[in-house]
Amino acid sequence: MSAKGTPISEATVNRLSVYLRCLQILEREGGTTISSQEMAKRFHLNSAQIRKDLAYFGTFGTRGVGYSVDNLKAQIARLLKLHEEKRVVIVGAGHLGQALADFQGFNSGGFKVVALFDIDPAKTGKATAKREIPILPVEEMDALVRARRVTLGIIAVHPQSAQEVYEQLARAGVKGILNFAPTQIEERPSVRLKAVDLKINMETLSFFTTA
Amino acid sequence: MSAKGTPISEATVNRLSVYLRCLQILEREGGTTISSQEMAKRFHLNSAQIRKDLAYFGTFGTRGVGYSVDNLKAQIARLLKLHEEKRVVIVGAGHLGQALADFQGFNSGGFKVVALFDIDPAKTGKATAKREIPILPVEEMDALVRARRVTLGIIAVHPQSAQEVYEQLARAGVKGILNFAPTQIEERPSVRLKAVDLKINMETLSFFTTA
Repeated sequence: MSAKGTPISEATVNRLSVYLRCLQILEREGGTTISSQEMAKRFHLNSAQIRKDLAYFGTFGTRGVGYSVDNLKAQIARLLKLHEEKRVVIVGAGHLGQALADFQGFNSGGFKVVALFDIDPAKTGKATAKREIPILPVEEMDALVRARRVTLGIIAVHPQSAQEVYEQLARAGVKGILNFAPTQIEERPSVRLKAVDLKINMETLSFFTTA
Repeated sequence: MSAKGTPISEATVNRLSVYLRCLQILEREGGTTISSQEMAKRFHLNSAQIRKDLAYFGTFGTRGVGYSVDNLKAQIARLLKLHEEKRVVIVGAGHLGQALADFQGFNSGGFKVVALFDIDPAKTGKATAKREIPILPVEEMDALVRARRVTLGIIAVHPQSAQEVYEQLARAGVKGILNFAPTQIEERPSVRLKAVDLKINMETLSFFTTA
């Protein structure tokens, strides 16, 4: 919910996440304040949209000065609930699953990958190369999700197994699932699903690179 | 450029790519026509936005009937220039690079991964598990990009090497680069860069799953 009590759309939350990333860059560079215009120019965003989004959850910059980088960052992080650590499991320990498990962004700023699961005995009993995250048999998923209070699951299996894995994750009790398998999943009302479509990035790039 | 002669924004191109994906699903299901309202409802989109986007490049549905799925799909694919095959190279043959090389979406509908490159001699001389895409020493990149007329490059290396790889890809002559390394790259004007931020998906999901 926003400060006004109306629900916040997924598109708005996506933009808030982008603003957070921009503010983190500004902070590393030593910036203390930024106006919506400066932020728009620097990161190719829309300044009116920035003001609208931030006003929406009750944050206003100071005229002529802008927003406090530090304060705005903290407010967005709190809204996105990144101060609570959320534990993550990944199903599928192929190249994609292992890359995601060791990915810094999934092991920082509120997230922690606690285990990978696979059905292939050749993969289980090992750990990822960089962060040494254990790869476990999928039969152990249910117990681990409950014991470690895991809230997020990632599907990194073949498209033909994605629906089954979704059901398993839902039954184990995760609250949100990120699906990397290129297939449509039939959703349960109790679990939020977000599909990652990597090809869209390629298509956009393609459009702008063929003159 | 749109039918009106004005440039099309990246956000619009992104949405067109989403519509294309929806139309492909509808086609597989045997659908022949669809209205903007039906499409919005089915895929959680905005019907006014759909009409605006499609009108923007000169496509109008028939009142009471909607759009022809087949025709609309072909028009969007043509606009996104997906009828021309674009060859792709990936730099970094770690888990992420190998996952992307074998990813169906990067090897269909206008795209084809022709090679991976790595500096690690333990990785080069081999091929990916599924599609048998060759992993070559990075010294061979320049010649291959020119010989095979590769237009797109993917950065799948550690953040600290991303800028160098970007420069190498740019020098070799690719026109667009997709960056998966979680770092900011300083751009050259001649090469379009698109960063993929996987963490944003996690943050959005996180917001909607912690009640």
